[in-house]
Amino acid sequence: MTGRLAIVGLGPGPEAWTTPEATAELARATDLVGYGPYLDRVPARPGQTRHASDNRVELDRARHALALAAEGRLVAVVSGGDPGVFAMAAAVLEAVEDGDKSLRTLDIHVVPGVTAMQAAAARLGAPLGHDFCAISLSDNLKPWDIVERRLRAAAEGDFVIALYNPASKARPGRIHDAFALLRAVKSPDTPVAFARAVGRPDERIVTATLADADPALADMSTLVLIGSSETRFIRRDNAPPWLLTPRSYGARR
Amino acid sequence: MTGRLAIVGLGPGPEAWTTPEATAELARATDLVGYGPYLDRVPARPGQTRHASDNRVELDRARHALALAAEGRLVAVVSGGDPGVFAMAAAVLEAVEDGDKSLRTLDIHVVPGVTAMQAAAARLGAPLGHDFCAISLSDNLKPWDIVERRLRAAAEGDFVIALYNPASKARPGRIHDAFALLRAVKSPDTPVAFARAVGRPDERIVTATLADADPALADMSTLVLIGSSETRFIRRDNAPPWLLTPRSYGARR
Repeated sequence: MTGRLAIVGLGPGPEAWTTPEATAELARATDLVGYGPYLDRVPARPGQTRHASDNRVELDRARHALALAAEGRLVAVVSGGDPGVFAMAAAVLEAVEDGDKSLRTLDIHVVPGVTAMQAAAARLGAPLGHDFCAISLSDNLKPWDIVERRLRAAAEGDFVIALYNPASKARPGRIHDAFALLRAVKSPDTPVAFARAVGRPDERIVTATLADADPALADMSTLVLIGSSETRFIRRDNAPPWLLTPRSYGARR
Repeated sequence: MTGRLAIVGLGPGPEAWTTPEATAELARATDLVGYGPYLDRVPARPGQTRHASDNRVELDRARHALALAAEGRLVAVVSGGDPGVFAMAAAVLEAVEDGDKSLRTLDIHVVPGVTAMQAAAARLGAPLGHDFCAISLSDNLKPWDIVERRLRAAAEGDFVIALYNPASKARPGRIHDAFALLRAVKSPDTPVAFARAVGRPDERIVTATLADADPALADMSTLVLIGSSETRFIRRDNAPPWLLTPRSYGARR
């Protein structure tokens, strides 16, 4: 097959976080496929066809993109953040796995990008300076008990925890369940941050302790960070505190 | 204070993975501070002073950069990958925490970048499509027992595991210890990948099962990925297999 499928990560929002590789792949594509709001972030280009779709139809979108590439088109599947992290790269390969064997001969190329966790960490200082994990709180595609198992394991391993998809209109309660679980096993002084829409005009960052944090601050656009036992605030006058997870472990115990 | 300190991530290697924000911060700096090989990746610029240092002197480098910024210089601390992930952002904030209170008034800005785990994942397909954790195997700054505790917790939580700093000349054995631990608790069929120098001319990627993998393939430039129970290979003719961790969990059990 002669077509090509690039799965492109735009990064979290501003163009300054979109890599040159992503920009180049978007420019050469004959067809752009993606969730409407992501496509809206790509500059218009004459002769390029746009195929916008709704959210939560990732597998349909992936199959459509593969079919276009199989016809010989140069297709860019457009993703926010990093397409490899809770995003379209997995959806495309699920469609490849379940599809015709010929799809495995397609030229498929994943273009990495800055993901929400990294943008949030950059604003907060250095919360990911040591071992961490990333957990999606969505239970659309997995049972809630595996989320609970992972939250418990993350606490047992004393990882810094990044929570993706903490809440949506259809799932307002899971972030409260997650905080209840973590409060039962982690120190009440653990630093927590809610980083909403980082890099976008409506960016808002709130820090708190695990005891004082309000889980209701989390929405679909929020990345929630929960510290390890080593994570601490660096207080500043007239500015929000930094969050630091040092490179060493146990040095102050 | 009037100076500025930007902690800039170049990404894993090629310029195509360096964000426009990183490029702009490097261009405006009066002083570049960093480990020599990272500075060598930054194009020369008239009037800009370079302060190269050895590896493993991160805290000295951070203090030097802060002192320059406190003098009013525009300083860029240059890091590979993402400075927030096992890198210079934490070192700088450790120096701020332990330094003079006036350092807390400095304009410090972290510029995120693509990290090795994401570059490796992009080449491999979609191994990070679901919950994952990142663990540094270096025991220079933490006791080995916390690494073991985290590996066990990562297996118990059935996370995909990304291992940073898996081996060095001074620590050739820890990756063997880590594999022995994981082999005792995870399925022998678990997909594993060694992604070395991704994006650079000497890039090499090897995939295997946990049972068959040779930990000696890991060196200082290698990112090691170990799948969850859901991660699988997608076999291809005449090409290395893709790695896929699907967005769903338990669908095929």
